[in-house]
Amino acid sequence: MTIEYATRYRARSHLPAEPGVPYFVEKGMGDRAHLFGDLFTVYAGGEQTENTFNFFTCQGPKGETIPAHAHPGTYEVFYVTQGAVRVFVEDLRGEQSERLLTAGDFGFVPKGCPHAYRIERHDSLIVGVAAGPGGTFERFFESLGAPTDALGLPKEPVVPEPAAFGTVPQRYDVRFLPGHQWHTSP
Amino acid sequence: MTIEYATRYRARSHLPAEPGVPYFVEKGMGDRAHLFGDLFTVYAGGEQTENTFNFFTCQGPKGETIPAHAHPGTYEVFYVTQGAVRVFVEDLRGEQSERLLTAGDFGFVPKGCPHAYRIERHDSLIVGVAAGPGGTFERFFESLGAPTDALGLPKEPVVPEPAAFGTVPQRYDVRFLPGHQWHTSP
Repeated sequence: MTIEYATRYRARSHLPAEPGVPYFVEKGMGDRAHLFGDLFTVYAGGEQTENTFNFFTCQGPKGETIPAHAHPGTYEVFYVTQGAVRVFVEDLRGEQSERLLTAGDFGFVPKGCPHAYRIERHDSLIVGVAAGPGGTFERFFESLGAPTDALGLPKEPVVPEPAAFGTVPQRYDVRFLPGHQWHTSP
Repeated sequence: MTIEYATRYRARSHLPAEPGVPYFVEKGMGDRAHLFGDLFTVYAGGEQTENTFNFFTCQGPKGETIPAHAHPGTYEVFYVTQGAVRVFVEDLRGEQSERLLTAGDFGFVPKGCPHAYRIERHDSLIVGVAAGPGGTFERFFESLGAPTDALGLPKEPVVPEPAAFGTVPQRYDVRFLPGHQWHTSP
């Protein structure tokens, strides 16, 4: 039996609208959103955890390094379950590092640390978890991009309106860092 | 380059001893512990996240249903990346359900809900995340079982001394529920 809920985010969701309710979500059936070429799937977030943490996946094609950004109040996990993803991070003293993560590898980005990533194999999958005093940001992806009921990657990239970059990121503890350069080498 | 840290838990750990430090951990190289027939690997915990959440894996052989328990103040995620794991959960009204999770499936257990699981395929892997007002309980496994530097499953089950069950669980927001029965059917 699969239960569906009406929530503030979806007319039909596998995530209950309030905490205290156990639930299961089959592979790929969380709340989905397209942003640029990627598919983001939310399996748990603020409503389920009393705003303590979230759990989501990012699936994407081989592509470019995403724009550098930081979360002033949120710690973030990158755990790769398929493919290969290069994670770039800068510590609070300005020292940069990068690492190619493949299945089973783990990366941790503390709050406030500039970071980015580049998917280096088609159909890579990253598990993301984020939490901290900045709250949970799992609805950033559908707010900047677009919610979808479809399964799979977007057929065409979902490119946000330029104005959205001025309003959406700060609502979700995301600070883009235009002009940020990565000086690391593998 | 792999950096190793001396922490309160390990003489040599890939997890830094304090928050604010970005880091990477290769597959399987987190802080490891054996408990019964399973291998638990901690990739992040209270020291790294200001006690907001943890991230660990449980790898185990096909086996019996583990003892029913609850976490009064901690929400817990079960995300299976290989094998098959049956999760049992009881909601706060006493209604029980169970679900067989395979790779990519997700289960969510709210704080206070009795739950258990049974690994149904050899070498299954569960990603666990837990957080909530009860804190993070990732050191429960090595406190009830035993820390290890080895890789892989224990050669012999690590069975705790009976007295440990009287002291360790409550330190980590774990309440075993002796006599609890599961009345679910698949």
